[in-house]
Amino acid sequence: MGLDPARTVRELEELRELTGDESGAQRVAWTETWDRARKWLAEKAAETGAAHEVDEAANQWFTLEGDSERALLIGGHIDSVPNGGWLDGALNVLAGLETLRRIAAEGRPPVTVKLVDWADEEGARFGRSLVGSSLASGSMSDQAELVKLRDRDGVAFPDAIGAFGVDLERASELAPRRLDNAAAYLELHIEQGPVLESLELPLGVVLGTFGVERSRITWRGQAAHAGSTPMAERRDALAGAAKLALHIREIAAQVGDGAVCTSGGVVCNPGIVTSVVETAEQLLDQRHLDAGKLARMLALAREASERFAAEERIEVSWESLWRIDPILFDDTLIELADEAVHEVAGSSHRLPSGPLHDAAEVARAGVPTVMLFVQSLRGLSHTNLEDTKPEHIELSVRALDRLAAKSIEHLAATA
Amino acid sequence: MGLDPARTVRELEELRELTGDESGAQRVAWTETWDRARKWLAEKAAETGAAHEVDEAANQWFTLEGDSERALLIGGHIDSVPNGGWLDGALNVLAGLETLRRIAAEGRPPVTVKLVDWADEEGARFGRSLVGSSLASGSMSDQAELVKLRDRDGVAFPDAIGAFGVDLERASELAPRRLDNAAAYLELHIEQGPVLESLELPLGVVLGTFGVERSRITWRGQAAHAGSTPMAERRDALAGAAKLALHIREIAAQVGDGAVCTSGGVVCNPGIVTSVVETAEQLLDQRHLDAGKLARMLALAREASERFAAEERIEVSWESLWRIDPILFDDTLIELADEAVHEVAGSSHRLPSGPLHDAAEVARAGVPTVMLFVQSLRGLSHTNLEDTKPEHIELSVRALDRLAAKSIEHLAATA
Repeated sequence: MGLDPARTVRELEELRELTGDESGAQRVAWTETWDRARKWLAEKAAETGAAHEVDEAANQWFTLEGDSERALLIGGHIDSVPNGGWLDGALNVLAGLETLRRIAAEGRPPVTVKLVDWADEEGARFGRSLVGSSLASGSMSDQAELVKLRDRDGVAFPDAIGAFGVDLERASELAPRRLDNAAAYLELHIEQGPVLESLELPLGVVLGTFGVERSRITWRGQAAHAGSTPMAERRDALAGAAKLALHIREIAAQVGDGAVCTSGGVVCNPGIVTSVVETAEQLLDQRHLDAGKLARMLALAREASERFAAEERIEVSWESLWRIDPILFDDTLIELADEAVHEVAGSSHRLPSGPLHDAAEVARAGVPTVMLFVQSLRGLSHTNLEDTKPEHIELSVRALDRLAAKSIEHLAATA
Repeated sequence: MGLDPARTVRELEELRELTGDESGAQRVAWTETWDRARKWLAEKAAETGAAHEVDEAANQWFTLEGDSERALLIGGHIDSVPNGGWLDGALNVLAGLETLRRIAAEGRPPVTVKLVDWADEEGARFGRSLVGSSLASGSMSDQAELVKLRDRDGVAFPDAIGAFGVDLERASELAPRRLDNAAAYLELHIEQGPVLESLELPLGVVLGTFGVERSRITWRGQAAHAGSTPMAERRDALAGAAKLALHIREIAAQVGDGAVCTSGGVVCNPGIVTSVVETAEQLLDQRHLDAGKLARMLALAREASERFAAEERIEVSWESLWRIDPILFDDTLIELADEAVHEVAGSSHRLPSGPLHDAAEVARAGVPTVMLFVQSLRGLSHTNLEDTKPEHIELSVRALDRLAAKSIEHLAATA
């Protein structure tokens, strides 16, 4: 049973047939369809002889015992958003399964190898993502909020996960033990962005996940009649928002290194054609892989907003909606991943991840981590239109397998 | 009975007492309170000996017959918005009444003088303003729409005006006769804007009412993930709207002569913090007193929008929401008004009117027209906070009276 990347493509198609419909993948966590997908995966994995366990957070583990208890983890998630794509999450576990098959066929490995299928990465039903991995990493600190969550039909989160044997308190206490011997964590994912496609590269190595600063900026001017108020008399809140919406692009260029800034919208009041805008509420999302540069981006935007407010004789105030620090992946594993990608694809590219992934939670728990990205067509994800060329999928399986082999070698040598 | 401008202030206070409450003026057209105000006005005017008539459009006319049938008209409206101010409309008719008193006291005038109290200038109850004056000017062409109008309580417009003896068809046919001998029309109004206050001038001469171009501009880019989409790959609809919101100010400055441009709001879709804006719908209001310059402002904005769309690799489309041509007042009457204002206030200022007024309808009907503006405090109107200093009210009564005297002299000389 050697490595057969074409089998991964066939199995992805089989899973789509089993758990999708004409609108897309329907493997929403804590549903019957998700359960069916998990059982299908467990049957496939059983053929490798890997031991099957479901932990206290409903994560599925498939373990090949090695000479050492130190473990290489390969992760993914088989859950999807409603009407989702055929690759997001499922590629990760099925490529991992293929690697598991290759390792099992070669006999007892020098270190333990585990494939993990994280529970509820998407958070599609209850709005809380990375459920299984954050319970395992010990970062699920908002339990008082979690017990209040309900789905669209009014089902409570604790009841939905209880049906799968999960109790939040117990999971928080016991699931982290699963990472005790974890010495490295690998995750392959579709990019869900346009970078690799624009560079005409099939594969990339992920440096970490962006830190994020999300802000709501409120500009306050003065409503005034569009007909009777001369231009020089106006205090236009929209002018402040417009200046900042354009200026954040200069900030991103100035800070560089992959910095992104997005003004996702402006809400104007009174918002009528006959009045100067009195208040404008602007959304801002800033991301960087470097914590210092992220802080600088935020500071630059705030400084600029004060300048614009003074120019326009309006007021500006800031509110932080949410923030997270950057999570950096492991330098050694990044080097190994780069070698693996070069070997299978001839060239590689290092890039940050905009979206969060289970890998970020594992890295936060202190486990050396790296991710591989495979090219997404048109950058689309979380839609039935999500796609990747089959030849790229096969290359990604080869790259994950090479990376796993290198990681095992590295762990065995540094034991 | 000579001119007594202080009496106008007292009568305005009396009217406020009679038809207002703690929230402001309540003289909404086609209501009992409005009716009470009209009867109160008619009683006052009767003392001058002027003949009282209500025309087919419910406009009230108070006529002092003169040696000639050629008539000088002085107009205003006693209706208000709900919770309105004490001056908007009422000042016009009460200052006109004071002038009528002065003229009547001096004996039979060389030309006929008429004070007109236009019905339903505000359109507060049914959303159609300038009802009485546009029926008289013959510009009320949307009768099929008018019969469908209903107020908040479901009362139909034809029923409400029917209670005051108005039939739309009959009024459209017969009301225009009232302007047959009109040789000049004068209207005093509060400015409802900040220009005179900022210039520290009590009075101004109105050159005409702005032409208006109202547009909805739709920018179409591409929704994209705020984390995974590099800046250079984005097609951000908000960037187009932001550039135009700032650029319209340059257009106003470039075209000059009182040009005003307002972007009253932008609606973004999807409008969430994690996505680049896919579509932005922007409202634009442009006004100028010169039809050619107004057309140029619109053309410049459209050209700029095409340039911004190309720069941002997005699409832009324009839709005209509403437009009206500028209405220019009469050069001779503007000169006379300027003389009158100089005589009572020492200095004058010529300015356009942003809002429409009954005077615009009369001018459209071909009657030589001019308006006087008196300073508004803080530019406020259509609110209980609307105010003008009593000494400025008195000056405005004097100026209207001087203008009426000069106009009568002019009409008598050019008969």
